[in-house]
Amino acid sequence: MATKILVTGGARSGKTGLAERLALRLGRGPVYIATAEARDAEMADRIAAHRAGRGDGWRTLEAPLALAAALDDSDGAGPRLVDCLTLWLSNLVLGGRDWHAEAEALADTLARQRAPVVLVTNEVGAGIVPENALARQFRDAAGWLNQRIAAEADEVWLSVAGCPLRLKPNDLDP
Amino acid sequence: MATKILVTGGARSGKTGLAERLALRLGRGPVYIATAEARDAEMADRIAAHRAGRGDGWRTLEAPLALAAALDDSDGAGPRLVDCLTLWLSNLVLGGRDWHAEAEALADTLARQRAPVVLVTNEVGAGIVPENALARQFRDAAGWLNQRIAAEADEVWLSVAGCPLRLKPNDLDP
Amino acid sequence: MATKILVTGGARSGKTGLAERLALRLGRGPVYIATAEARDAEMADRIAAHRAGRGDGWRTLEAPLALAAALDDSDGAGPRLVDCLTLWLSNLVLGGRDWHAEAEALADTLARQRAPVVLVTNEVGAGIVPENALARQFRDAAGWLNQRIAAEADEVWLSVAGCPLRLKPNDLDP
Repeated sequence: MATKILVTGGARSGKTGLAERLALRLGRGPVYIATAEARDAEMADRIAAHRAGRGDGWRTLEAPLALAAALDDSDGAGPRLVDCLTLWLSNLVLGGRDWHAEAEALADTLARQRAPVVLVTNEVGAGIVPENALARQFRDAAGWLNQRIAAEADEVWLSVAGCPLRLKPNDLDP
Repeated sequence: MATKILVTGGARSGKTGLAERLALRLGRGPVYIATAEARDAEMADRIAAHRAGRGDGWRTLEAPLALAAALDDSDGAGPRLVDCLTLWLSNLVLGGRDWHAEAEALADTLARQRAPVVLVTNEVGAGIVPENALARQFRDAAGWLNQRIAAEADEVWLSVAGCPLRLKPNDLDP
Repeated sequence: MATKILVTGGARSGKTGLAERLALRLGRGPVYIATAEARDAEMADRIAAHRAGRGDGWRTLEAPLALAAALDDSDGAGPRLVDCLTLWLSNLVLGGRDWHAEAEALADTLARQRAPVVLVTNEVGAGIVPENALARQFRDAAGWLNQRIAAEADEVWLSVAGCPLRLKPNDLDP
């Protein structure tokens, strides 16, 4: 069974850097699967900065919606880095898709991968309850997705201020 | 002295599931003490989903405000699960009660319990500072309450993406 | 080389109390370097409460902007406690300063300190994405600053509900 790793954390907490280091340990020929769409200048800048930071040696696929298909298509020898699940969920919701069914399909797809996968996601539920009902629904969906994928993962890491903390497995489990 | 455990985490981080598992280890005849009030359809749905998830074998008490009394009244042999402190605090604030005095009374009540108690609470202070002054006051109050109850607890757990992390006691204490 | 420690956490999570305990272990004659400005009554109350909580024995310096200079000026034998980096960043941004250059200068200043320094900062990126573009930029800047200073620090601690968790160094590093 291929190794599956989930990396979570707040905004600008060092998640992607940690995920890259973990992915590069899992084999040669890494593939970067981007879920971001460059819909505005702010997002385009962010994508360009991430790409420049990764350096050469990565193949890049774009999968704003068809993430499960991108995983199956790239299931060769090299590790895949999915960056990130929260944007993918946002794309599904904005596109009017059945995000719950798509998330279950993603979990099934992950379970049958032969090459390693590292997935980045975001902590979005540790602030004050949003006044906006759609924001509340989104943070519930994001929390549910994080739990669903974490349950499939062999390892789960939390990044805080660039410091990695392993949540699964850990010696302090009840 | 009865075991007291506090479980904290963001929205949909797996707090209640972890708290249920911890409570069921502490004895038979578990009691679920709900602080939620079904004031709207969104909250009613959430309560119903939680109740269905728990299954049979739990006795349920409702204590949107009188939490300390509910603990004393249910202080028999079985473990109690309080879900959750943040909603209880919100009920106190919305009801114009002296939340600070009520929180101190809750801490005193916890200290004299003979049967175990597991309490669920929320992390609400790790987002951007809210623009709304009432929201800022609430997150200060919630943070203070979490510290106050954590100081009384024998164990404190953080749930992230469904993964439990023990904060107290832990081997990395300074 | 002097010990440098970073303490992070959400609002009212016990960061300052933990930082004080850590600072007092690092030597006599502690210096409290406050970055807060008492611009309104809410902030003045918060500053007064913190000062009362610290008790005697602390010398206090105010450095809402000139933090690097305050560190150099106070670089004697006693430990310094900087409270906090997030407010300092906010002061720089509101003052129209080049926060990125100032943060790099702070990191350089930290690297050459002879007496110990404990710095408090905030987790602000674990809530829902703010609708306000300036808030999004601020949380990105705050996350970047946290990573930059954490990289210089010998120890990084996360405070949750008053419970300290050591993030750096930790035995669970990848």
